[in-house]
Amino acid sequence: MVDTQTTSERSHVAAKRYIYAWGAGTAEGNGNMKDLLGGKGAGLAEMTLAGLPTPPGFTITTVACNDYFAAGKQLPQGLWQDVLDAMRQVEERSGKGFGDPKNPLLVSVRSGAKFSMPGMMDTVLNLGLNEETLAGLIALSGSERFGWDAYRRFIGMFGRIVMDVKAERFDEPLEHAKAKHGADAKDTDLDVEDLKALVDTYKQVVREDTGRDFPTDVYEQLDLAIKAVFASWFGKRANDYRNSQKIAHDLGTAVNIVTMVFGNMGDTSGTGVAFTRNTFDGTNELYGEYLVNAQGEDVVAGIRTPQDISHLKVEMPEAYDEFVKIGQKLEAHYKDVQDLEFTIERGKLYMLQTRIAKRTAEAAVKIAVQMVNEGVITQKEAVERIEPAQVDQLLRPQFERKALAAAKAINTEGLNASPGAAVGKAVFDADLAVEWQAKGEKVVLVRVETSPDDFHGMAIAEGILTARGGATSHAAVVARQIGKPCVAGVSELNVSYATRTASSSKTGMGFKEGDWISVDGNTGRVYAGALPVVDAKFEDQPELQTILGWADGFARMAVWTNADKPEEAAQARAWGAHGIGLCRTEHMFREGDRLAMVRSAILVANVATRAKAKAAAGEALNADETEAVATFDAAMAKLEKLQQGDFEGIFKAMDGLPVVVRLIDPPLHEFLPNLEEQLVKVTRAEEHGGASEEDKILLATIKSMHEQNPMLGLRGCRLGIMIPDFVKVQTRAILNAQVAVRKAGGNPIAKIMIPLVGHVNELKATRTLLAAEADKIVAAAGGVSVDYKFGTMIEIPRGALTADEIATEASFFSFGTNDLTQMTFGYSRDDAEGGFLLKYVEDKILPVNPFQTLDDAVAGLMKIAVDKGRSVRPDLELGICGEHGGDPESIHKCEKVGLDYVSCSPFRVPVARLAAAQASLSTQHDK
Amino acid sequence: MVDTQTTSERSHVAAKRYIYAWGAGTAEGNGNMKDLLGGKGAGLAEMTLAGLPTPPGFTITTVACNDYFAAGKQLPQGLWQDVLDAMRQVEERSGKGFGDPKNPLLVSVRSGAKFSMPGMMDTVLNLGLNEETLAGLIALSGSERFGWDAYRRFIGMFGRIVMDVKAERFDEPLEHAKAKHGADAKDTDLDVEDLKALVDTYKQVVREDTGRDFPTDVYEQLDLAIKAVFASWFGKRANDYRNSQKIAHDLGTAVNIVTMVFGNMGDTSGTGVAFTRNTFDGTNELYGEYLVNAQGEDVVAGIRTPQDISHLKVEMPEAYDEFVKIGQKLEAHYKDVQDLEFTIERGKLYMLQTRIAKRTAEAAVKIAVQMVNEGVITQKEAVERIEPAQVDQLLRPQFERKALAAAKAINTEGLNASPGAAVGKAVFDADLAVEWQAKGEKVVLVRVETSPDDFHGMAIAEGILTARGGATSHAAVVARQIGKPCVAGVSELNVSYATRTASSSKTGMGFKEGDWISVDGNTGRVYAGALPVVDAKFEDQPELQTILGWADGFARMAVWTNADKPEEAAQARAWGAHGIGLCRTEHMFREGDRLAMVRSAILVANVATRAKAKAAAGEALNADETEAVATFDAAMAKLEKLQQGDFEGIFKAMDGLPVVVRLIDPPLHEFLPNLEEQLVKVTRAEEHGGASEEDKILLATIKSMHEQNPMLGLRGCRLGIMIPDFVKVQTRAILNAQVAVRKAGGNPIAKIMIPLVGHVNELKATRTLLAAEADKIVAAAGGVSVDYKFGTMIEIPRGALTADEIATEASFFSFGTNDLTQMTFGYSRDDAEGGFLLKYVEDKILPVNPFQTLDDAVAGLMKIAVDKGRSVRPDLELGICGEHGGDPESIHKCEKVGLDYVSCSPFRVPVARLAAAQASLSTQHDK
Repeated sequence: MVDTQTTSERSHVAAKRYIYAWGAGTAEGNGNMKDLLGGKGAGLAEMTLAGLPTPPGFTITTVACNDYFAAGKQLPQGLWQDVLDAMRQVEERSGKGFGDPKNPLLVSVRSGAKFSMPGMMDTVLNLGLNEETLAGLIALSGSERFGWDAYRRFIGMFGRIVMDVKAERFDEPLEHAKAKHGADAKDTDLDVEDLKALVDTYKQVVREDTGRDFPTDVYEQLDLAIKAVFASWFGKRANDYRNSQKIAHDLGTAVNIVTMVFGNMGDTSGTGVAFTRNTFDGTNELYGEYLVNAQGEDVVAGIRTPQDISHLKVEMPEAYDEFVKIGQKLEAHYKDVQDLEFTIERGKLYMLQTRIAKRTAEAAVKIAVQMVNEGVITQKEAVERIEPAQVDQLLRPQFERKALAAAKAINTEGLNASPGAAVGKAVFDADLAVEWQAKGEKVVLVRVETSPDDFHGMAIAEGILTARGGATSHAAVVARQIGKPCVAGVSELNVSYATRTASSSKTGMGFKEGDWISVDGNTGRVYAGALPVVDAKFEDQPELQTILGWADGFARMAVWTNADKPEEAAQARAWGAHGIGLCRTEHMFREGDRLAMVRSAILVANVATRAKAKAAAGEALNADETEAVATFDAAMAKLEKLQQGDFEGIFKAMDGLPVVVRLIDPPLHEFLPNLEEQLVKVTRAEEHGGASEEDKILLATIKSMHEQNPMLGLRGCRLGIMIPDFVKVQTRAILNAQVAVRKAGGNPIAKIMIPLVGHVNELKATRTLLAAEADKIVAAAGGVSVDYKFGTMIEIPRGALTADEIATEASFFSFGTNDLTQMTFGYSRDDAEGGFLLKYVEDKILPVNPFQTLDDAVAGLMKIAVDKGRSVRPDLELGICGEHGGDPESIHKCEKVGLDYVSCSPFRVPVARLAAAQASLSTQHDK
Repeated sequence: MVDTQTTSERSHVAAKRYIYAWGAGTAEGNGNMKDLLGGKGAGLAEMTLAGLPTPPGFTITTVACNDYFAAGKQLPQGLWQDVLDAMRQVEERSGKGFGDPKNPLLVSVRSGAKFSMPGMMDTVLNLGLNEETLAGLIALSGSERFGWDAYRRFIGMFGRIVMDVKAERFDEPLEHAKAKHGADAKDTDLDVEDLKALVDTYKQVVREDTGRDFPTDVYEQLDLAIKAVFASWFGKRANDYRNSQKIAHDLGTAVNIVTMVFGNMGDTSGTGVAFTRNTFDGTNELYGEYLVNAQGEDVVAGIRTPQDISHLKVEMPEAYDEFVKIGQKLEAHYKDVQDLEFTIERGKLYMLQTRIAKRTAEAAVKIAVQMVNEGVITQKEAVERIEPAQVDQLLRPQFERKALAAAKAINTEGLNASPGAAVGKAVFDADLAVEWQAKGEKVVLVRVETSPDDFHGMAIAEGILTARGGATSHAAVVARQIGKPCVAGVSELNVSYATRTASSSKTGMGFKEGDWISVDGNTGRVYAGALPVVDAKFEDQPELQTILGWADGFARMAVWTNADKPEEAAQARAWGAHGIGLCRTEHMFREGDRLAMVRSAILVANVATRAKAKAAAGEALNADETEAVATFDAAMAKLEKLQQGDFEGIFKAMDGLPVVVRLIDPPLHEFLPNLEEQLVKVTRAEEHGGASEEDKILLATIKSMHEQNPMLGLRGCRLGIMIPDFVKVQTRAILNAQVAVRKAGGNPIAKIMIPLVGHVNELKATRTLLAAEADKIVAAAGGVSVDYKFGTMIEIPRGALTADEIATEASFFSFGTNDLTQMTFGYSRDDAEGGFLLKYVEDKILPVNPFQTLDDAVAGLMKIAVDKGRSVRPDLELGICGEHGGDPESIHKCEKVGLDYVSCSPFRVPVARLAAAQASLSTQHDK
């Protein structure tokens, strides 16, 4: 393309502005230009504009990056000239010369995309060094060792990052050099001669591995570094990261060229990192650490113990005061806690970076409330600023705060793949984990990566730790699925199955099999030893309650809960639920001695039901039939009484709030013994003189009720139609409970919900049965109101597709998205989640597990149902009671679908309240 | 309403025309006015207009009926006056007087709705008789016995039909009177005195049961009869019939008042029924029978043997010639075979009714072809006139024609509930049926009605006969479902479980348990003895082939077939299939020694697949893994070779026509032994010294592959993604077969179909696997074309809902409506059809079994998929391969959905060809 351009086109291209400089109190860009300048470049420009001391520099735009690729990896016309011009300006502003042997300007070259991308190119520091400028640097710093060490580091960094030499090619000679000073020698033990020798060796390595000499021309260094940053945009790690984070591939990266400042130029120099508030517990105090006479990487490497930032006030009071003011200014400017990097070069403070600070969940909530109270942000902004996952974290067991603050993590980086705190003995394979667990040990499973073969070990472990794999790796997916804390992808961790040890290549810390370790799924950190764990209480977190109270004010959708017992209902109500969206009557069937009762009814249910129909038609019953009816009715009568008590408890707990009671749903054989077990029992007994009649009858009954696909079999409303007494008994229990509570002065609000409806006639048939019972109760109620709402679950695709017909009979719909997902996908959740679904998510055949986050096609089906339902009944009440009701991303989809409420398990209620508010706010923003 | 009407409103109402008369060669209505006059009234008007001799009369319109109900069961204003006026006209035209003792006019009163309704009121004959007019009738007929018999019959009929007296109240005294003349006495044995006494008794019965005297005023008789006809419209039987036939309830019935003519006024009188062509075998000849000196009911009662219609030529040549001419005229007029009722009164011929003649399937096809050849109807009309069920009948075993013609049916009426011919020994309960069948007997199950308890007997019976229940009764539904001939609802059949006998109350014929009987599910007739049965051959039915050839010319949709073997493919092709829409590769897995091969592969499939992935990642395999891979690959290689041979056979059989091959679909455990059986085997062995390792491993493998809901589990494309070798091997077999056949000069057209796709990524992943194999085959094919189409089944709701995404990867869709129905309804067919689905259809919760006839909501989902699919790929090829593809009503729905073809089992291909043509034609009519 370039070749065929006319001159005027070329000048048009050249006229694009590719470079934005800053320095000397002014900047060409600003903080809003993240698209063009990337986060880092925009931040530096904004800081400069704000009057903060930044080292001068300039940004090459993301457009330049895209043009570079569009032109077949050629720098766009005119760009190089612009870079040269910008370097002139930096030289002027810094008072140094690029390549000047006397007073050399060194720069760092950094990538900087719109979104922070850990998968991108590292920073190249000290660019501009060669044998000549090195002499100048030594002269200026007064330290030969400092100079040679900087040069050694520069060649290593540049060689690795820009020239693609493998890291170990530099690491090996370094280790060799250190070894001469003893087994535990550190970098700082190397003397000038060692460093000079290393520089020679490094240059030799570069020559061998790249076939060319290390570039000594500083502009060649700059040219290569710029191109390397561009190239890193389409590097594998960056591509993978964008895919995983759903970041567009055409955003491009900017390149920042920044004057080097040195914190290691003596005792009036230093470098540090600080947060404008405590990002750990939320306290409003400057929080961070620094090192005198050090460069940034020294802080990370942990060679010397940094000092608390407050000590800077003593050591360099002027710089400290300036830094505090800058922090306050930046926080006020960005209206959020800032994560600041600074360097002091011979007493002069430079701000290298400011960005929104990452923080713990606790800090996030506290700071948000503080800032509202301080008038810095609005309640709406506070609500939008908290992540639902943070609310989730705050309600899970956590490591005791002080212990955590005092502990030193084994790893520097790790993916917080599944939240929560896990403590156990490290075990390196699943079989051993199961063995230890069986002996009563708590274990944490540690693997390089996990596969389906490890599932049994994961299932019994307290937590999981892996060295490889991202957010959609097997370990991460399974851990979230089974609710285990997990830290994944700790690539610095060398896990050896042979020696049964693991150690971090960055901190040098590690552990061996059988050692206690603590895994923090919230932060991605792993600790040696057993850190104490504390339960998190909603009641003890006033700021969280405050935020959620604000959230409720912004949410269009209400949050209800799925609760089957009075205690659960009360708990959920305390956590902010405004109703029960799903009360599963059959969950009461398993309590205490009820199962025996239920079982005795089920065993004769078919015979008794048919006998009753015969009797109703005037036919005589035989003795067996009469007995079956008597047995059945007796069991059902007991059950009715017990269920009525349950409902009374629930109505009282939810007084004044709606309670949606679902009639019996699961297949009856769920209440019978397992077929295989009974078969083995009878078969064994038959081999030894014969099984009992009772066991044989039980086996025959289980077999007769056995279904090929129980998920698609006799359950839900089908059951009530086949065995009408279930509907009758449950209706009586619900409505009599309501009458009783009302007579006692309560305000019970009952809604009766019919499950698994696929055809409106099912609803009609069930309603007829139910209404007849209700009429009797009305007659007996002595004037007490027996009103109730009648509605249905929409969980069968046909139900959704014919929602206009179904809405003629139902005053509310509750989407049962567990079943709806099963049937829309044709997945049996029980079978799929342990099987192919895992592979589907790992291989990205599916973007997410659709049982965790509502699938778009399922949401589309819900929308069809909502539109059809409302077309015939505009006041149709719409909710969701599948597990998706507690998942933030799904809640956003529910907002778009237009539901009135989401219902979720009690412990998800706080998360859902926040997510519902955010969904409403983001929908308003969209408008 | 009436009370508040003003005078002008009343006259407006009165101005409605409620009455249409005919007679004396003219008529106020005509044959097109069935909505207003009903079928009977319109027919009589049309016949009169055509110059045919009809007895004068008039019709009260269906509008009058509706107005009658709208006015709260009051005759509309002015109607009675109009009736009186019309009666005057009838008196003039007949030359008789209503109530005239000298020359009495008698009339019949009949209901007559737009559609023929067997559930409606019977006819009241001889209305207008009382003691005085009786004298006139006796004088005119010259027979006292004739007169008193007519009067006796009138009181009985009127009493039963109009006055709601139970039939047995008249039957008992009649039987009693006959008994005096001996055990076997007939009605004709009664003398005048008997009849006079009966008249007295009948009047007494009326008085006792209704509390009033039998009306002697002839106008009162008329008034009551008209109201009784109106009332019958909402009678239970009529309501039920309309519900079952989906006839609207607001059509109303007309009332026909027709001058009585008497075929029993001596030897120049007579009555008969005839068809203008032979409705049994289709021969073009007048076909029917008559009785001299008899009334219509005598023909039915079978007291005297009627004579063949040809004999009338001898007995009454003039009347015969006139009748023949009339028949020809009517046939030409209506362009179809007519079913004629006539009476000759003292030499004068009266036509009482003409209607389209019912006919056997064989006659229907032959007559239609004849009429096209005669130029009477067009090919299009011929195609529209045949019912798909008739084509179905013609291809099932049938009773040998001559034997059937010679046999006398036990029953006069019965519902042809499920087609086919069944011969067996009558058995009156299901247990005994099973017992006899086990001894090698053929049995026909005879029950008053069936219930789920009878299922085991129905399943092994040759056919089923019931006395009660309609087209949606348990017997009818189950029989059609399991493909057994069934005659249901023979209400005249008294079935006694006590005496183990059955007999018809109408013919007096019957049988006892153990007697051979023959059940004709095509006609609803039952015969004593074992009638010979013949196989129907398509090749021997040239007229059927002709009609279907015409049909193909009108059909927009093509008809393909589901065939898995070359023989099936050839058969279907001979029957007119234009391609294979579904070739199920796994059906070949069970042939001969293949199952062992497949099983050995499956047992190691997971281990081998994982080992291969390890090897591909460069990891070493252990001995077990190496062995698993070897075992797996060896079995798959053998299978590939065998499958290639199968495909070659199929491609040859369908040379030049498309063959859609579906890759492996069912869950693998279908090829393994049953879990319960293996569990019992191992458990037993364990109790006796231990099971073999082999058996234990097999049990463990079966358990590991066991799924809760296999229908929603690891099957379809999921299987190919988890175990890629299945896709690879099958792709190679298909494409290598294509290459081989092409090299041999054939023209194979392969389409590869991926089952159970719910997400486009499944299709992408499978396509990648498949294309890699295809590329290798292309490379090895030496220039021979290896082109193939790639498409998918749409059988998962999500697949349908995201068809726009899926169509980007698929060049064709084939709707797998079996699974789509299962998942859209949430029904497991295996479980539902034997269980609740039966009750759903019986109780009309569902209008039909959705696995037999495509449900509207499922069709709606298909339409969504069609629209979305075509929106991104306008030339997307669309078909159906579920069983619905052979069901006529479903085929109509497929036409509306816009499919390109339907694919069905070979024996349904002829039916589908006709249905496809009719669907296209009816869609054109709709436009």
